Amino acid sequence: MNTRIESDLLGTMEVPADAYYGIQTLRAAKNFQITGVPIAHFPELIRALAMVKAAAARTNQDFGQLSDKNADAIVYACQDLIQGLHHDQFIVDVIQGGAGTSTNMNANEVIANIALTKLGFNKGDYQHLHPNDHVNRSQSTNDAYPTAVCLGLQFAADNFLPTLISLKASLEEKGREFAHIVKMGRTQLQDAVPMTLGQEFEAFAVNLGEDVDRIKEACALLCEVNLGGTAIGTRINAPAGFSEAVVQKLATISQKPLVPASNLVEATSDMGAFVFFSSMLKRLAIKLSKMSNDLRLLSSGPRTGLGEIRLPEMQPGSSIMPGKVNPVIPEAMNQTAYQVMAADMAVSLAAESGQLQLNAMEPLIVYNLFNSLKMLKAACEMLEQRCIRGITANEDICRDYVERSIGIVTALVPVLGYSVASKLAREALLTGATIKELVLQQQLLTEQELEQALNIEKMIFSQKEG
Amino acid sequence: MNTRIESDLLGTMEVPADAYYGIQTLRAAKNFQITGVPIAHFPELIRALAMVKAAAARTNQDFGQLSDKNADAIVYACQDLIQGLHHDQFIVDVIQGGAGTSTNMNANEVIANIALTKLGFNKGDYQHLHPNDHVNRSQSTNDAYPTAVCLGLQFAADNFLPTLISLKASLEEKGREFAHIVKMGRTQLQDAVPMTLGQEFEAFAVNLGEDVDRIKEACALLCEVNLGGTAIGTRINAPAGFSEAVVQKLATISQKPLVPASNLVEATSDMGAFVFFSSMLKRLAIKLSKMSNDLRLLSSGPRTGLGEIRLPEMQPGSSIMPGKVNPVIPEAMNQTAYQVMAADMAVSLAAESGQLQLNAMEPLIVYNLFNSLKMLKAACEMLEQRCIRGITANEDICRDYVERSIGIVTALVPVLGYSVASKLAREALLTGATIKELVLQQQLLTEQELEQALNIEKMIFSQKEG
Amino acid sequence: MNTRIESDLLGTMEVPADAYYGIQTLRAAKNFQITGVPIAHFPELIRALAMVKAAAARTNQDFGQLSDKNADAIVYACQDLIQGLHHDQFIVDVIQGGAGTSTNMNANEVIANIALTKLGFNKGDYQHLHPNDHVNRSQSTNDAYPTAVCLGLQFAADNFLPTLISLKASLEEKGREFAHIVKMGRTQLQDAVPMTLGQEFEAFAVNLGEDVDRIKEACALLCEVNLGGTAIGTRINAPAGFSEAVVQKLATISQKPLVPASNLVEATSDMGAFVFFSSMLKRLAIKLSKMSNDLRLLSSGPRTGLGEIRLPEMQPGSSIMPGKVNPVIPEAMNQTAYQVMAADMAVSLAAESGQLQLNAMEPLIVYNLFNSLKMLKAACEMLEQRCIRGITANEDICRDYVERSIGIVTALVPVLGYSVASKLAREALLTGATIKELVLQQQLLTEQELEQALNIEKMIFSQKEG
Amino acid sequence: MNTRIESDLLGTMEVPADAYYGIQTLRAAKNFQITGVPIAHFPELIRALAMVKAAAARTNQDFGQLSDKNADAIVYACQDLIQGLHHDQFIVDVIQGGAGTSTNMNANEVIANIALTKLGFNKGDYQHLHPNDHVNRSQSTNDAYPTAVCLGLQFAADNFLPTLISLKASLEEKGREFAHIVKMGRTQLQDAVPMTLGQEFEAFAVNLGEDVDRIKEACALLCEVNLGGTAIGTRINAPAGFSEAVVQKLATISQKPLVPASNLVEATSDMGAFVFFSSMLKRLAIKLSKMSNDLRLLSSGPRTGLGEIRLPEMQPGSSIMPGKVNPVIPEAMNQTAYQVMAADMAVSLAAESGQLQLNAMEPLIVYNLFNSLKMLKAACEMLEQRCIRGITANEDICRDYVERSIGIVTALVPVLGYSVASKLAREALLTGATIKELVLQQQLLTEQELEQALNIEKMIFSQKEG
Repeated sequence: MNTRIESDLLGTMEVPADAYYGIQTLRAAKNFQITGVPIAHFPELIRALAMVKAAAARTNQDFGQLSDKNADAIVYACQDLIQGLHHDQFIVDVIQGGAGTSTNMNANEVIANIALTKLGFNKGDYQHLHPNDHVNRSQSTNDAYPTAVCLGLQFAADNFLPTLISLKASLEEKGREFAHIVKMGRTQLQDAVPMTLGQEFEAFAVNLGEDVDRIKEACALLCEVNLGGTAIGTRINAPAGFSEAVVQKLATISQKPLVPASNLVEATSDMGAFVFFSSMLKRLAIKLSKMSNDLRLLSSGPRTGLGEIRLPEMQPGSSIMPGKVNPVIPEAMNQTAYQVMAADMAVSLAAESGQLQLNAMEPLIVYNLFNSLKMLKAACEMLEQRCIRGITANEDICRDYVERSIGIVTALVPVLGYSVASKLAREALLTGATIKELVLQQQLLTEQELEQALNIEKMIFSQKEG
Repeated sequence: MNTRIESDLLGTMEVPADAYYGIQTLRAAKNFQITGVPIAHFPELIRALAMVKAAAARTNQDFGQLSDKNADAIVYACQDLIQGLHHDQFIVDVIQGGAGTSTNMNANEVIANIALTKLGFNKGDYQHLHPNDHVNRSQSTNDAYPTAVCLGLQFAADNFLPTLISLKASLEEKGREFAHIVKMGRTQLQDAVPMTLGQEFEAFAVNLGEDVDRIKEACALLCEVNLGGTAIGTRINAPAGFSEAVVQKLATISQKPLVPASNLVEATSDMGAFVFFSSMLKRLAIKLSKMSNDLRLLSSGPRTGLGEIRLPEMQPGSSIMPGKVNPVIPEAMNQTAYQVMAADMAVSLAAESGQLQLNAMEPLIVYNLFNSLKMLKAACEMLEQRCIRGITANEDICRDYVERSIGIVTALVPVLGYSVASKLAREALLTGATIKELVLQQQLLTEQELEQALNIEKMIFSQKEG
Repeated sequence: MNTRIESDLLGTMEVPADAYYGIQTLRAAKNFQITGVPIAHFPELIRALAMVKAAAARTNQDFGQLSDKNADAIVYACQDLIQGLHHDQFIVDVIQGGAGTSTNMNANEVIANIALTKLGFNKGDYQHLHPNDHVNRSQSTNDAYPTAVCLGLQFAADNFLPTLISLKASLEEKGREFAHIVKMGRTQLQDAVPMTLGQEFEAFAVNLGEDVDRIKEACALLCEVNLGGTAIGTRINAPAGFSEAVVQKLATISQKPLVPASNLVEATSDMGAFVFFSSMLKRLAIKLSKMSNDLRLLSSGPRTGLGEIRLPEMQPGSSIMPGKVNPVIPEAMNQTAYQVMAADMAVSLAAESGQLQLNAMEPLIVYNLFNSLKMLKAACEMLEQRCIRGITANEDICRDYVERSIGIVTALVPVLGYSVASKLAREALLTGATIKELVLQQQLLTEQELEQALNIEKMIFSQKEG
Repeated sequence: MNTRIESDLLGTMEVPADAYYGIQTLRAAKNFQITGVPIAHFPELIRALAMVKAAAARTNQDFGQLSDKNADAIVYACQDLIQGLHHDQFIVDVIQGGAGTSTNMNANEVIANIALTKLGFNKGDYQHLHPNDHVNRSQSTNDAYPTAVCLGLQFAADNFLPTLISLKASLEEKGREFAHIVKMGRTQLQDAVPMTLGQEFEAFAVNLGEDVDRIKEACALLCEVNLGGTAIGTRINAPAGFSEAVVQKLATISQKPLVPASNLVEATSDMGAFVFFSSMLKRLAIKLSKMSNDLRLLSSGPRTGLGEIRLPEMQPGSSIMPGKVNPVIPEAMNQTAYQVMAADMAVSLAAESGQLQLNAMEPLIVYNLFNSLKMLKAACEMLEQRCIRGITANEDICRDYVERSIGIVTALVPVLGYSVASKLAREALLTGATIKELVLQQQLLTEQELEQALNIEKMIFSQKEG
């Protein structure tokens, strides 16, 4: 393998000649071999890093900190990354020590070497354009990295939300499709009162829809960035006014309404916005899991379960039991949800362990947030396309449950009172008679009164009244 | 013990004659003896339940569902509870099966019996005023209980937020008091660059201040209630228009901007707002824990630690080591924070386990949210009054660190470049010389240039400019 | 209120004249008011502390560190506590800073004052018998407190295990009672193959029985104690040989096979045995929750659920739906299990945050372990007595499920092959025909062959073969 | 792409012609695209699956269920997998619905096709040797899969434990190397009493060593397997005696002391052994994290921290601060530990969600256990080789701390009493004098008495006395 020699504080190393990354990236890649997942796994983060570097370059140019030539070269290099080129050069493991320095240096080195190439120099000729002195100019890992994370998470959320909205739309569609199917509602797994199957799916849709808003709010909190605070938020080595200017530039490049944090010292060590973001992913995961549990309950059977709905059959369910088909898609959704809930715990542990002016565990937070978004996107697509859209209803079973149910006795409480109705329910349970039979037999109501009291339409009204 | 006989669906029981609660409460109290903590432990919940019942009574009266006399009696009874009377009658354990039915029936029974007494009847004479038919009229546990929880949590938050704001103010005050004390910032526990001790405390204040806003947002989500949805959100047994009317009435009584949920079926089983609320408490706990860790680090010593600050001495620290004083207050804050973080996990587990039209585990969520708020309030008061206000600085130590530090070499990067500065830092570390000495000795800068580059004021600027 | 004056390192305070606790306890009680739960809530911990102090007194006497008179007085005082007297004097909050020092000093002071009284002195006359110099002689909080916790947890486990074993026995009893009831097993909530209801309950029993062993193993790990290590495990201020002697004495007093830890420095900061203990409680909680979920599933209905079993009716289930009875006891068990799982997280957080020679968060660990044991004991008693023992089976439903099931086709795989059997299953599902009908109709097997293949007895054999 | 046509219950699909996997694997690979990590990521699991299939084939042969030719072909195919061939054919995502059926069918299909090739048939010619009828003969996913997991985890643990033992040995080595360096111990980050740096590292070693035993115990629990229970533990479709025979065969093949579970119904749904295993990994993670925290504390500085030790320098620490070197290796260990702790939560969530006769979430448990082991192995190797082995001590700083310390006053308690010693400590703190100076000045002890009392050797004795 052809190599070039690079050097740093700790000595020299041979770097592959064709690598755009440099010695610090290589050291980090050797130091951290924990997960096998490189940061290139999260292209939104790479894109965001490139935007930060481009914004810094232009701002440094404006402040006289960088020559036009070098600024242009850096920006051109960043554009390559933004367009998705060279992401394979981001080789550092997602779990890494150093509070993100290795990720930042990976970006600095790759950008410097692309830029050097564009300027006609050899890779590694850092005297012309240096990863630290030029690409990282007026920045520290401690402001550039979290700013890129704030931005990259917004890109990843932009990528995810249409998936979630589409899932919601498919649930709404099922809500409409099943609007006419009356069934029994259940509370605590015990027969309650009638509703429609459409209402059940509509509720799923509404439930997920709220989290679209919550995730947007989480993104809004990520718009406050600490770029320009440099090492610990005191702006050391950044020219006066740099923070405001570079964040404005970055807002323009990224098309996101970024603003500088009002207190940069606080913002440097604060993980609050990430904890918030993670909490919203956990909230969504809890909802997706609850819905998957419901889908599995409602489709349980075919002969010994509730059997109200049928999920599309995606694969044979058993290596031994012929004909068995299992609810594998909701099961995979459940497991994804549990993994996301667990990821939130990793985020909490990491966030709590910050010390003084920085949180050294930030890379773990970053990994879990991007990974959760990625898994949720895949799982929501799976759930929508391989399950929700193909769900069909067993109308006969649904209707039959209503007719056999004791729960409709509830509708008689306003006319007969809770105590009398309780006795009726009890008798129905013990004798197997229906409520209707008992009421008429005991002449508690006329047939007409009974019909009116047990009007299903009246029982299943749930919308806000106009 | 004098008793009276009450009966329900399952038979009869002897209830203490002077008890305002009734048979269903008594059954529940016997069934659930898990924690020993009764729901009376959370007076805000009792007050909120009473408001819900009062609002329902007045609305039932307006809709012709309740006589004026009975409505008045119920409202009078509720006012007793709102004023804090009879809370000892709420005896059901905070961990209870039944999705809150026992808590709701505890309220229904206590209110019914207070009302009966006011009307001149005996306790238990439910033919005149019945817990279910009158107090619970047009309601179900499944709407009345979560609505009360949403309201009660807002009261508990109202109670907590001034404590948090006061803690923040004390941190700000320390920020001002220590504004002139220059010290070394640390990242990853390694020497970084200078800052002031005031900036450090100001950052704590800003950090907590943000969570005042987050908790208010969490309260805003709790303003959407499902009262009027009755059993499963289909409004069974509630007159048309009841939901809108009763929520408006409750908003007036409680002085909270409550609105009916737009989809009552969804709202009945949704735990999303509680998960959100819990996440915000966890977020705050993480921040409080990180700050407590920092306080313990900064005050470590007295002779073998960082020793930058002194915490007020609250108690002898050791049964064997004389003169030892430990940071017991931040330690108790840490532990409270861990307990709150764990409570959030209980909330998550409970929220995920909802099934179909209801979440039977809601009482566990309720317990943990109220309990976390209660513990956080106590711990924040403790932290402010027994620690923060009495913190003093060791100015000499702080200054000495800056003078001995190598980290100020960072300020030379713009003039000398990263590589030259790295070599200086290395030499300083190995020889024990200061950066200033080395720069002058190697004639890298004149004394005047050096002074200008190492101007501390320039290094520690963190506020938003302009 | 009559008071006496006591003094310590930090000054003087007025202590209630009749209090056995002293100034350090009072300071701690004022400092920590987080949960409102005093350490007296856990009598096993108080008893264990008293045993440690008694063992230390006798060993100090043997080593010439304590006069016979003082040693006797201390031991008499400890016996009072062991017998359950004066526990109300243990007033410090369970969440406390100081790594247990306040709990240890609470014990030292209470024992000193009881002993002083027995010797004819006034409370507070510590010149005759001093909490630190005599009761705490040759000890530190850092060895006496964790040793007491190790011992107290074993007592609490001794208290809990018979409850768990009794619950197991009731499940076995149900296993025998239901041994003849054939039903369909379900995997992934889909019809699988036949089994008996007895097998299902027997499996619950076996499942819990394993955890009796696990908890005993957890107790065995707690037998290695660090008493004699004093402040940090270096035995400072303890006479040579003290550790071995005092642990042997404590083993005799407590009737537990305690041994000194092989490395006392390690043992002083190590929380491993507590993490293990907590993990075993979590494991049990997970199993209890899974079983409760199953009980709720199997008893779902009465008309729209699985309906295989009936739980005893413990209380009316709804404030609005007459006759509804809910599975409130398993629901309360579920919630207890979630709380215990969350407590394990608190233990993990606290254990991870130890620093250098001690873990300051040990009181939180202690609180959660004792509290979890207490809740589990209460909940298991509840589950056994108010649910398991009264469960009855719906034999008709169980049998009906088997007859209607498609899952028995599995038994034909060895004779017909997986592919042919799959086609049969499919046809049965689509046509509504039974497997038997189809096999005979298609002349795949003779009636006799079919009977033999579908022999239920052969299908449900699960025991180890003799 | 060349393809072949395969069919199953749900229809036909084109499978790549050269693929050893078949239609069911392909369906699963399309259905589940959540993590991008295929089960091939865990070679120990693949090897274990192959051993299960080989043991089953031989036992089926013995029981007359399989021809010699087919049994031989299957066993040859399994040997390929055991030797590491064809692992790339295991393409199903680690997060998958179906309770492991897809993993089991992936194995069945790959083995069938390798065997077919060996027998001279084409891939997909299942009439000669069928994935279900032959490879999966007398098995179900529900026994074959968990049995393979139990076995594979033991292989993975075998792979991990030498790493852990080696880390322990390096810590012991440092313990010996630093045995002569006296330093101050710290409790609650406050100065305590003297110890040696060697004791500190020895304690780390002992602490981790205990977990070698715990993990071995966890493996022992995994030796009880449910192979032979088939679908739900009732042994349906397995010949009488099969379970005992096949497990014995598997024990021989795998060289692990496997035994059949005593109750196969219980064993089929029980996740207890996995929860135990996960808890032990969490316990170890907690210890590794605590140790990493300590290493970072002890090496904090170089000028403004504790500075007792120096970690080897692995990479430049900052993009802005020249010369800064951070404790990146322990930081990466911390993050790995947090991820493992979070994985334990995913395991808990999945374990709790089992229903009736099976736990459908088992694949998530499997993923997290194997992944945690893999990460822990990598991180422990990293920690040992890139950190522990290169640690050096700052002897001067350690000694200086002892000399300046007030904590040695503790050693005077036996001669002066706690109260007098407390006053000395206080005076030393306020005046800056040393304890020795004060004692002599106040003539509390003679110089000789003082020397004897403050004998460092006596203070730092921690081993079990012989």
